[in-house]
Amino acid sequence: MKLEHIGIAIRNSADSEKIFAELLGSDSYKSENVESEGVKTTFFNVGESKIELLQALDPQSPVAKFIEKRGEGIHHLAFEVEDIDFELNRLEELGYQLIHRTPKDGADNKRIAFLHPKSTNGVLIELCQEKT
Amino acid sequence: MKLEHIGIAIRNSADSEKIFAELLGSDSYKSENVESEGVKTTFFNVGESKIELLQALDPQSPVAKFIEKRGEGIHHLAFEVEDIDFELNRLEELGYQLIHRTPKDGADNKRIAFLHPKSTNGVLIELCQEKT
Repeated sequence: MKLEHIGIAIRNSADSEKIFAELLGSDSYKSENVESEGVKTTFFNVGESKIELLQALDPQSPVAKFIEKRGEGIHHLAFEVEDIDFELNRLEELGYQLIHRTPKDGADNKRIAFLHPKSTNGVLIELCQEKT
Repeated sequence: MKLEHIGIAIRNSADSEKIFAELLGSDSYKSENVESEGVKTTFFNVGESKIELLQALDPQSPVAKFIEKRGEGIHHLAFEVEDIDFELNRLEELGYQLIHRTPKDGADNKRIAFLHPKSTNGVLIELCQEKT
């Protein structure tokens, strides 16, 4: 398992891209809208992981609600797994609460599913698997 | 620059170690108290990065105050740099607000310094450098 990316909820794409480019010393390499989540994603490489900036495109999207409640900040951690269906079953059997029992399409050519932060110390966790 | 670790504020070390061991499929490999921060740290490997669980040892510690205000969850991101003094100067000149202008001793044989989340999209960022 590796840390695929860290999702960060932001208000303004241009401002935040400047901040992370300055922090990391390199520009973002890709932006992609994910209609199912109502967000614009912008990616930066950091070693084997990525920073994924999340800007809401829709005031009803989960990211817009997150910012309304908690302000800008770290939104989720995404771990890459080899077999997302196996992992979801394994974690459900261990008693973890799944937000998605069936993976859906995410950004960056991946199948993704979230675990509920109630069962993971307040950390919203995404599992993801590259689509073949 | 690489993502050295993700710090996660937790209430109970035993409960949270079980959660992350189950999630990551491997046990923690080290625990260490950091007296200057009033925390017990517990580390898990995830690829080239680490998860660092942070349990307050003192109700006045920054982690205890974080949990009081926001509950358990992701506390900070730590990036490893080659020259922490150079990076702190560079970021201060760019207008970033530093919590520590001079690095201090952290867990895991490192010199560390934090940037204020006000200037980094609500994300508390640690820079760290391995002590030689």
